Amino acid sequence: MKLGKNHIGFTYTAEGSKTFTTFNPKLNQPNDTKFTEASIQEIEAAVALAADAFESYKNTSNKEKAKFLNHIAEEILALGDDLITMYCLETGLPEGRAKGERGRTVFQLQSFANLLSEGSWVDATIDIAIPDRVPFPKLDLRRMDIPLGPVVVFGASNFPLAYSTAGGDTASALAAGCPVIVKSHPMHAGTGTLVAHAIITAAKKTGMPDGVFSNLNSSGIEVGLQLVAHSKIKAVGFTGSIRGGRALFDLAAQRPEPIPVFAEMGSINPVVMLQEELKKNTAFWAEAYAQSITLGAGQFCTQPGLILSLEGAIFTNFTKFLVDEIKKTDPNCMLHPDIFEGFKSNKKQSESQLGLEVLTDTNLAVTPNFAYASISRIDGDAFLKNNILHQEVFGPHTLLVACESLSQMKEIITNLQGQLTASLIATEKEAQVNLEIIEALQNRVGRLVFNGVPTGVEVCNSMVHGGPYPASTDSRFSAVGVHSIKRWLRPFSFQNFPDSLLPEALKENNPLDIKRTRI
Amino acid sequence: MKLGKNHIGFTYTAEGSKTFTTFNPKLNQPNDTKFTEASIQEIEAAVALAADAFESYKNTSNKEKAKFLNHIAEEILALGDDLITMYCLETGLPEGRAKGERGRTVFQLQSFANLLSEGSWVDATIDIAIPDRVPFPKLDLRRMDIPLGPVVVFGASNFPLAYSTAGGDTASALAAGCPVIVKSHPMHAGTGTLVAHAIITAAKKTGMPDGVFSNLNSSGIEVGLQLVAHSKIKAVGFTGSIRGGRALFDLAAQRPEPIPVFAEMGSINPVVMLQEELKKNTAFWAEAYAQSITLGAGQFCTQPGLILSLEGAIFTNFTKFLVDEIKKTDPNCMLHPDIFEGFKSNKKQSESQLGLEVLTDTNLAVTPNFAYASISRIDGDAFLKNNILHQEVFGPHTLLVACESLSQMKEIITNLQGQLTASLIATEKEAQVNLEIIEALQNRVGRLVFNGVPTGVEVCNSMVHGGPYPASTDSRFSAVGVHSIKRWLRPFSFQNFPDSLLPEALKENNPLDIKRTRI
Repeated sequence: MKLGKNHIGFTYTAEGSKTFTTFNPKLNQPNDTKFTEASIQEIEAAVALAADAFESYKNTSNKEKAKFLNHIAEEILALGDDLITMYCLETGLPEGRAKGERGRTVFQLQSFANLLSEGSWVDATIDIAIPDRVPFPKLDLRRMDIPLGPVVVFGASNFPLAYSTAGGDTASALAAGCPVIVKSHPMHAGTGTLVAHAIITAAKKTGMPDGVFSNLNSSGIEVGLQLVAHSKIKAVGFTGSIRGGRALFDLAAQRPEPIPVFAEMGSINPVVMLQEELKKNTAFWAEAYAQSITLGAGQFCTQPGLILSLEGAIFTNFTKFLVDEIKKTDPNCMLHPDIFEGFKSNKKQSESQLGLEVLTDTNLAVTPNFAYASISRIDGDAFLKNNILHQEVFGPHTLLVACESLSQMKEIITNLQGQLTASLIATEKEAQVNLEIIEALQNRVGRLVFNGVPTGVEVCNSMVHGGPYPASTDSRFSAVGVHSIKRWLRPFSFQNFPDSLLPEALKENNPLDIKRTRI
Repeated sequence: MKLGKNHIGFTYTAEGSKTFTTFNPKLNQPNDTKFTEASIQEIEAAVALAADAFESYKNTSNKEKAKFLNHIAEEILALGDDLITMYCLETGLPEGRAKGERGRTVFQLQSFANLLSEGSWVDATIDIAIPDRVPFPKLDLRRMDIPLGPVVVFGASNFPLAYSTAGGDTASALAAGCPVIVKSHPMHAGTGTLVAHAIITAAKKTGMPDGVFSNLNSSGIEVGLQLVAHSKIKAVGFTGSIRGGRALFDLAAQRPEPIPVFAEMGSINPVVMLQEELKKNTAFWAEAYAQSITLGAGQFCTQPGLILSLEGAIFTNFTKFLVDEIKKTDPNCMLHPDIFEGFKSNKKQSESQLGLEVLTDTNLAVTPNFAYASISRIDGDAFLKNNILHQEVFGPHTLLVACESLSQMKEIITNLQGQLTASLIATEKEAQVNLEIIEALQNRVGRLVFNGVPTGVEVCNSMVHGGPYPASTDSRFSAVGVHSIKRWLRPFSFQNFPDSLLPEALKENNPLDIKRTRI
């Protein structure tokens, strides 16, 4: 393996003149390896290979694709401690997290392999001919999902494994039959290269076409923009900031042939705490939320950044408990100095807003890149009027909003931007009499949690990770779970086709033995 | 009923100062009724009502929505001859077509009513909790589809009933639980008003909320642009020109909150004719295609505008047969002078291209708005080099391309824009040895027809009406068939919810008795 080079299909190259390094935020110093940013020629080569690979890969059987995905999982595990060490060096995250995320990544790959092995994912429907129908005969029509074409995936800063090189976007696109080009995240380019190597090894071992996967190094925005603008690229997956995701969405929408961009972006994941439950279990919820707020240094898409409750003794008491819990937590290393600086400046901006009261001492001297969690409080009225406070502060920061009434709370929820999640802390009874609050939350989010925390995104069929803009650029899809494959598929219909020319999924005798709708 | 006014929910209004009339293309004279274009205030009122209506309509039961849709169908039929007469006055189309399209419209509404009555369309999946899972318990997660919000539908010029006021877009959006505002097509505003009246009558009879449907008159682009830009509108359905659809797509993509636009736009629906079958059944295919080319004066989305074959005696012979058949057809009245003028100027532009040979005499004097079908011929090489010839000439016009080889044919197909359909005329045997041609066609289209004509879009589960851009703005959806409901839905996930708070589709005992995936 050639750390620092690009994977253009099965070939390692480093033709460009621009190099960069990753950074160890714990030691506050750059790592050694020099990564060579992909040149325009390398980008062209990767795209051309992907377009060629699509011609055969789109027809690769479920069984072969499943073998490929399972092999990727095996090759990632085979990287062993090298991967874990690199991950920790490049992120400042602890070994436990690295191993947990590796497990999740492997599980995701295996989940899509299982989906393929089962085979019904193509959503086959068959309308049989009715030759004697009047006034016109009905013709035989058979529909199934087919892949869109080459997909570009942008690695996410906060999930170097599960939402990056071989993460959910890559796994779902490869499962769909789409070749993938990853725009590697510059903060963990080494982790990305190791995983890319695992994917390429698996591709070779399982006989996949050269170009089914490429991994391009990039320290700025140019490589990504060139990829998204390329006429042979047919869809984009992105996890990151609103600014970044929107820029890609805009670029893709302005192409002569617009293409879909699924960008999972910012979210403050509002939490509504109702009186009865909050009073009954004050300490429990304070502890649970202190953990959720500070988990992974608050660097999760689903970090709870906003807690709404009615003003009064119960919320004041909870606030005390929560602040006490937060004060017990150690500062945590953030992913990169840039992210740490972003956190500090966004937090500062938030804390300077009119009416905002800072409840945690944020002026403690800290180790570089280590963030203390911060909690602030504001009245509902002041929050409602101030859109700056509706924006995400990426990191361990949460704003408590004391609402003067349930109707003000509803108004606040209605005026929030789209969110990935909302959570409701309530007794079943008080939830039943506050359906308007639940309705208002549902209108703004993709997932609603009852008596729990929003962090911890289960990878399963029923998970929705997405939501109204700007939680995502298209709320009609989820980025997590096997349903996420739908982002890369389009329906296709065969009319009056002889059985010999139909794909197996649609042949009359159902050789794949899959679930089909027959009419 | 007040012909000429707007329907703002249940209220008729005509506050604007701009009026227009429809046109009888057969008589070549304007119709009598003056339609008042919706004012800015009326647009605002319709959107506000739709947003309010969404709050209750989204929770309206399947049974009640099905009743509403079935009632719309009944009320449309109850309009009787008034509707048929108005349709013919405003379109120049014959009575038989009007009745056929009414039947299709009614069938579409009933199909969605049946989908709702069955209930499984919400795609419910349930992941049951595994409290003792290690290292973390699995929580109960339940997913279903929910509606996006108010939808704007643009009436189509060429389908005053089936793709306009109560057409496929409206029926699927109402079925999804989305209120609809129709931007009525100015060429058949009277037909639109009659159908809108039927919808409003049905809404009142079945207890639907005021605002569930509005119908706005408009003679230009302003009303449509204002609707699409409105923050309370959450999705758009459009059938029409590439220029119009792209303008709406661009506007929607540039909003602070971008929204999905499903625009079904232009298509030349390429037909590939292979030698053996063409030789065997020359006269049959010439007759079938002469009919398909001229059906409805060539004003169908799926009109076959391009026929590719190998140069030589077989194709030359077919060409003679086709031209003879075309010459037998009478000129047909087009929908409107603007469409007739567009046809003439696009045809003229096409016929002036280098290497193009006009096979039908197009200089015959004709009745105003009546179009003679026209057939031209060009060599593959000249076609390949000339993108103007790749564009749609809306109307009864077809270009025959004589390819010098199968590889040139494949190159031509590969270089076409996205298409709704392609058709392959071939024996089963020659199709089997020309899989590359089939693959190339599949890459460019949403539906592939074997030994048939592309016109005649069956409304059924397995139909795909859509395709790669510019056939549609999002190839991941179909505009026809019950799957088209997916355009207006987003997935939603309930985590750890008590049964009493879950919607019926997700309750543990499955009170709706629908198909669900349970894991």
